[in-house]
Amino acid sequence: MRIDLNSDLGESFGNWRLGDDGALLSVVTSANVACGFHAGDPTVLREACAGAAERGVAIGAQVGYRDLAGFGRRFIDMPPAELTNDVLYQIGALEAMAHAAGERVRYVKPHGALYNAIVHHEDQAAAVAEAVALYDPGLPVLGLPGSVWLRRAEQAGLRTVREAFADRAYTPEGTLVSRRAPGAVLHDAEEIARRCLDMVRGEPVAAVDGTPVRIQAESLCVHGDSPGAVGIARAVAERLRGAGVELAPFTGSAAPAGDA
Amino acid sequence: MRIDLNSDLGESFGNWRLGDDGALLSVVTSANVACGFHAGDPTVLREACAGAAERGVAIGAQVGYRDLAGFGRRFIDMPPAELTNDVLYQIGALEAMAHAAGERVRYVKPHGALYNAIVHHEDQAAAVAEAVALYDPGLPVLGLPGSVWLRRAEQAGLRTVREAFADRAYTPEGTLVSRRAPGAVLHDAEEIARRCLDMVRGEPVAAVDGTPVRIQAESLCVHGDSPGAVGIARAVAERLRGAGVELAPFTGSAAPAGDA
Amino acid sequence: MRIDLNSDLGESFGNWRLGDDGALLSVVTSANVACGFHAGDPTVLREACAGAAERGVAIGAQVGYRDLAGFGRRFIDMPPAELTNDVLYQIGALEAMAHAAGERVRYVKPHGALYNAIVHHEDQAAAVAEAVALYDPGLPVLGLPGSVWLRRAEQAGLRTVREAFADRAYTPEGTLVSRRAPGAVLHDAEEIARRCLDMVRGEPVAAVDGTPVRIQAESLCVHGDSPGAVGIARAVAERLRGAGVELAPFTGSAAPAGDA
Amino acid sequence: MRIDLNSDLGESFGNWRLGDDGALLSVVTSANVACGFHAGDPTVLREACAGAAERGVAIGAQVGYRDLAGFGRRFIDMPPAELTNDVLYQIGALEAMAHAAGERVRYVKPHGALYNAIVHHEDQAAAVAEAVALYDPGLPVLGLPGSVWLRRAEQAGLRTVREAFADRAYTPEGTLVSRRAPGAVLHDAEEIARRCLDMVRGEPVAAVDGTPVRIQAESLCVHGDSPGAVGIARAVAERLRGAGVELAPFTGSAAPAGDA
Repeated sequence: MRIDLNSDLGESFGNWRLGDDGALLSVVTSANVACGFHAGDPTVLREACAGAAERGVAIGAQVGYRDLAGFGRRFIDMPPAELTNDVLYQIGALEAMAHAAGERVRYVKPHGALYNAIVHHEDQAAAVAEAVALYDPGLPVLGLPGSVWLRRAEQAGLRTVREAFADRAYTPEGTLVSRRAPGAVLHDAEEIARRCLDMVRGEPVAAVDGTPVRIQAESLCVHGDSPGAVGIARAVAERLRGAGVELAPFTGSAAPAGDA
Repeated sequence: MRIDLNSDLGESFGNWRLGDDGALLSVVTSANVACGFHAGDPTVLREACAGAAERGVAIGAQVGYRDLAGFGRRFIDMPPAELTNDVLYQIGALEAMAHAAGERVRYVKPHGALYNAIVHHEDQAAAVAEAVALYDPGLPVLGLPGSVWLRRAEQAGLRTVREAFADRAYTPEGTLVSRRAPGAVLHDAEEIARRCLDMVRGEPVAAVDGTPVRIQAESLCVHGDSPGAVGIARAVAERLRGAGVELAPFTGSAAPAGDA
Repeated sequence: MRIDLNSDLGESFGNWRLGDDGALLSVVTSANVACGFHAGDPTVLREACAGAAERGVAIGAQVGYRDLAGFGRRFIDMPPAELTNDVLYQIGALEAMAHAAGERVRYVKPHGALYNAIVHHEDQAAAVAEAVALYDPGLPVLGLPGSVWLRRAEQAGLRTVREAFADRAYTPEGTLVSRRAPGAVLHDAEEIARRCLDMVRGEPVAAVDGTPVRIQAESLCVHGDSPGAVGIARAVAERLRGAGVELAPFTGSAAPAGDA
Repeated sequence: MRIDLNSDLGESFGNWRLGDDGALLSVVTSANVACGFHAGDPTVLREACAGAAERGVAIGAQVGYRDLAGFGRRFIDMPPAELTNDVLYQIGALEAMAHAAGERVRYVKPHGALYNAIVHHEDQAAAVAEAVALYDPGLPVLGLPGSVWLRRAEQAGLRTVREAFADRAYTPEGTLVSRRAPGAVLHDAEEIARRCLDMVRGEPVAAVDGTPVRIQAESLCVHGDSPGAVGIARAVAERLRGAGVELAPFTGSAAPAGDA
């Protein structure tokens, strides 16, 4: 058994710090590194890429809307052609940072409001997929199972990788419970770790109403933007490894001497 | 005889247009394409790269300070390490745009206040050179003869290419007359074209005080940010070609079917 | 008979010029001056305010989304409370520029995608109205007749001013024909001027299908972002004045010695 | 005996938090609130102003260079006329936020690299002074004793207020020891508090070399960007109050029911 753990990194900006990249890099196997449009200045990005490269963590381009003030969390109704170009630009920029660390961008994962929008938004989903395909048709993309995004990416010839969220409740149909609904976010590290192990083993977990539901994913998304979050991520990694699950990037890039 | 003509392109931003990229691309052999920090949104950059690729014009990364409000024309006293990362980021971003056009970034030329600063500023000059060397030690850089920038770039192992300015007056020592001094900028298209031909032939031109001075360069910089400027650029190109001078990118990249 | 002519000004940014503010200021009676979020740097804004003050043109705050790259033309799904604060900030910033010219902000008109959004979007409309009321409940607002925006502004106790568009076609119901529909934008200066005079006189104009329709407005919006647009604005002003219509700001602020 | 304590607030931006504004507002009597150019989005600014108004803390406009990526800590060599307009814009923007809290901007204090630049830079110092005088000649300004800034502000007819730094070492001449020199920054809360009391009493403190030196100031600057810093600020306030020193804004604005 084998699984990937992904998390957001490189989301500081200038004098503002966010998240504990160093702690996360010792836990995850794939780093969704911001690309400067919603967060991440070039120095932050280069450090995140260097840290990832050192530990054998795969570097992904976490592309988003150009919206520092909103942290990429506000939907922007932009023309698809411009979105394609914005995404291309971001991937290329991060590639240079990865390259300076002897590595390269291994996958793409949209961020925040863009991630949410392209679950349903056909034109924006297609625009992001087109950007990735233009950049490198061999680059896999990470996304929500059942999303328009993954369907469009597949149609564009891209390898699609489904992710599950470690700390989110699911409906009996296997979709995410809306963040605004009660019980949408789980907080108990032990419970979260146990559910993750069940998912990886292909066993059902309890949906928000108790119904057993099977969540299939090649990658588990964990968070790192609070001390508690890093603790949860660590608990998940430990539980999985303790049960004999191999933690490795879904991209298959070899880990050097890191502890991931 | 052979010479390169370079000019700034891709300097529009969003709804704001600047320069006539289409007209310039039919004149120059190297395009210094902005990278988004002083000008140029991703859509503008991609169009500039596509146009350049179509016409066999070499694409250069015109890197600058992060300063849209100042168009990169204000010196920013930033830490060299951050400047290195800002330049890396910009080159990578433009590379993605060039790549989508089937081309790549062929050289680097700093813009505006950064260009002027690194004529003298050792640390910033070294920082920009480091960025280029980190990105690709095979990438040549364009600059002012005698500048700290070209010396530092050489020390970093980069190929340095000297440029002359078609419409600028020179001192008897062969340095540029300050823009604030009278007569610093030439306006007569015929005179400018004649001087360019003299430079290319290795013959002296008249310095600002009339003294003959030899200006050696592998590339001539022409401007395109006004209708008059494009007319001058065209006059230069015609005069040179009429005298049997081959216009070709200094990078040696082959021109396809374009008229450049 | 009396009418106000309003137009967008102060939409240049740094090195990028847009529109001919000088020409427009000799035509219009109300200037919707950008506030720096979608366009307009402080120097541009101060010049626009100084020019308006000199000519007795009323200064309005043209508030928009924070989106220089999109020129405020892309809907941003932002929390209403943040929108209120963004609008407050913009009005205050422009007030300082008007104050330095011996004037003040006389009204508020939303720009671009924000203007369009709050025709229907209840929460964002209420958020903008709240900002104006917080800043100064005596400040009138300009908007589309029948819009949620004007209704919400009225509910917030603001004086609402209806505007008509000189160069736009109307449906038989008196609403704007979508820009995407054929015939949505009129181009003939003479026809536009004649229609404006009819509107001011309270006479019907031809809807897009020929049906006569009455458009009532206290202000006519003209454009100035192209040489042709300024010509149309001038034709409208001349036709109205020639027919004895007084052109004056709807805010009633007295014009000093200007030619407006 | 009476003194003002000032500190920087409102320096968060979007999703990024910086400093503990709530804690600081219970300690200081004057809040240097960022204005959006180096830090502070409109929502952050409005909250800072509301908190200050509630506690009777005077609101000052902490104006800076337009440089979010550099947090206003990088000198920008901008034309003085543009700097004047940038400062005007910032004061006006913050005024709107203060106004929404029932208060107004009571003074101006430059931030970061601008603060440092105008200790010596005549043109930029004059440009900032001009902005304040244009906005309101009755607005006092805060600055370093002996700086070009305070001299230029005086020449512009402004009331100038000298500040001392609670946690910085001084030379025997009474100027600040450069941050790069050893011992430039003091860390011991007790020692800092004792020195502050000596300054307020008009007694000498030990310069960096032990020489006694008298530092005269109407305001003491304390920091709040780390938990330790807030602790020091609190120690200073307690020590001063314990010795019978009244803590009150230098602007003389009355404190309502707050604990400052």
